[in-house]
Amino acid sequence: MKTERVQIVEKILDANDQMALENQQFFDQNNTLAINIMASPGAGKTSLILRSIEGLAADYNIAVIEGDTAPVTIDSDKINARGIPVTQINTGGDCHLDALMVRKGMQALDLNQIDLVIIENVGNLVCPAAFKLGSHINVVVASIPEGDDKPYKYPNIYRGIQCLVLNKTDLLPYVDFNFDYFKKGIQMLNPQAEIISVSSKTGEGLETWLAWLKAKIDEKKNGTE
Amino acid sequence: MKTERVQIVEKILDANDQMALENQQFFDQNNTLAINIMASPGAGKTSLILRSIEGLAADYNIAVIEGDTAPVTIDSDKINARGIPVTQINTGGDCHLDALMVRKGMQALDLNQIDLVIIENVGNLVCPAAFKLGSHINVVVASIPEGDDKPYKYPNIYRGIQCLVLNKTDLLPYVDFNFDYFKKGIQMLNPQAEIISVSSKTGEGLETWLAWLKAKIDEKKNGTE
Repeated sequence: MKTERVQIVEKILDANDQMALENQQFFDQNNTLAINIMASPGAGKTSLILRSIEGLAADYNIAVIEGDTAPVTIDSDKINARGIPVTQINTGGDCHLDALMVRKGMQALDLNQIDLVIIENVGNLVCPAAFKLGSHINVVVASIPEGDDKPYKYPNIYRGIQCLVLNKTDLLPYVDFNFDYFKKGIQMLNPQAEIISVSSKTGEGLETWLAWLKAKIDEKKNGTE
Repeated sequence: MKTERVQIVEKILDANDQMALENQQFFDQNNTLAINIMASPGAGKTSLILRSIEGLAADYNIAVIEGDTAPVTIDSDKINARGIPVTQINTGGDCHLDALMVRKGMQALDLNQIDLVIIENVGNLVCPAAFKLGSHINVVVASIPEGDDKPYKYPNIYRGIQCLVLNKTDLLPYVDFNFDYFKKGIQMLNPQAEIISVSSKTGEGLETWLAWLKAKIDEKKNGTE
């Protein structure tokens, strides 16, 4: 008896991954770039977002999806004050956003009119790594006072990112931070990740970050990617 | 027909809570104080532990249970270099310690000889709040550069603590931090929590923290609590 050839069945995505894929397709249909910003609490996600809005709002239509574990609108209010549409998602205590939460955030936006959606994840260096959202670009914001050993202690969060923004360089004179040790840790986990040092406070390095991000938005907007 | 009186059944603890209770009883039997130190990544848990060892090791026998999400011994090595017994627990990517992990850490220690067990939780402001370990005292280390709005954004972690150590006061001149706003946030959630400002770097304020902790160790050691 001839053995039937067994058909190779594609890996079935779990529900979150499937929804993330659909989110990304929906962003793509609208030529909208989606970036997911992750960090530990207080590294400066919101400050970087505000600086990005400042540098890009004249040329691009931007919206923000804002994740928080508690029903507070501290960050959303800051963003909204710049005239940028923002959808706040309260995770109800959960330590990360997921694809369904982002889906709900997207539904409140007219993506057809938007070039860039910035998703601010919950401040956490562990949980967000495990949940795809549908973003094209994942960024971790690290900060100088957190210390140079974080890539060694929280490795998973750095593996799937395209860019590491090292914030609060203005504090370098006052804390012990070995940049080479930090960079080595990142590159060991993710040799492709761009590493950009900035100070959202003084503005140092922001032009590099903005140029990097602009190129990505343009690629998506012009459908060249 | 007379309705039977329904017996009120005591709330059955979940497995983690039950194990945490047993851990605490075991600490109590040995007159050992157990403290659980929580913080976001890079707030300075390990530095505070090293400073505490420095200030207490002449008078007390100390051991450390060290939680990490990855199999790295960066923090354990620093503690071990001071001649303090340390058990390292790798959570395998989990965002918190739990009572079973602490149980395993305890089993590697001769508690009968130990006055103080310091448990360093995973760096995370969300997950550790939901898992009792069996510690007598829960502490959150906050730090000045993380910003003054954290109690409003991550409220759960502050509810069950006895002490909030606000670290890195040496950076106060260089960052915007409204102490009153921060304190108001903590007190709204937890009016009983002690708030102690320190700089593990310069040593400022550490005498207050050490005196507070000494009193708690003595109470437990002498069985007055």
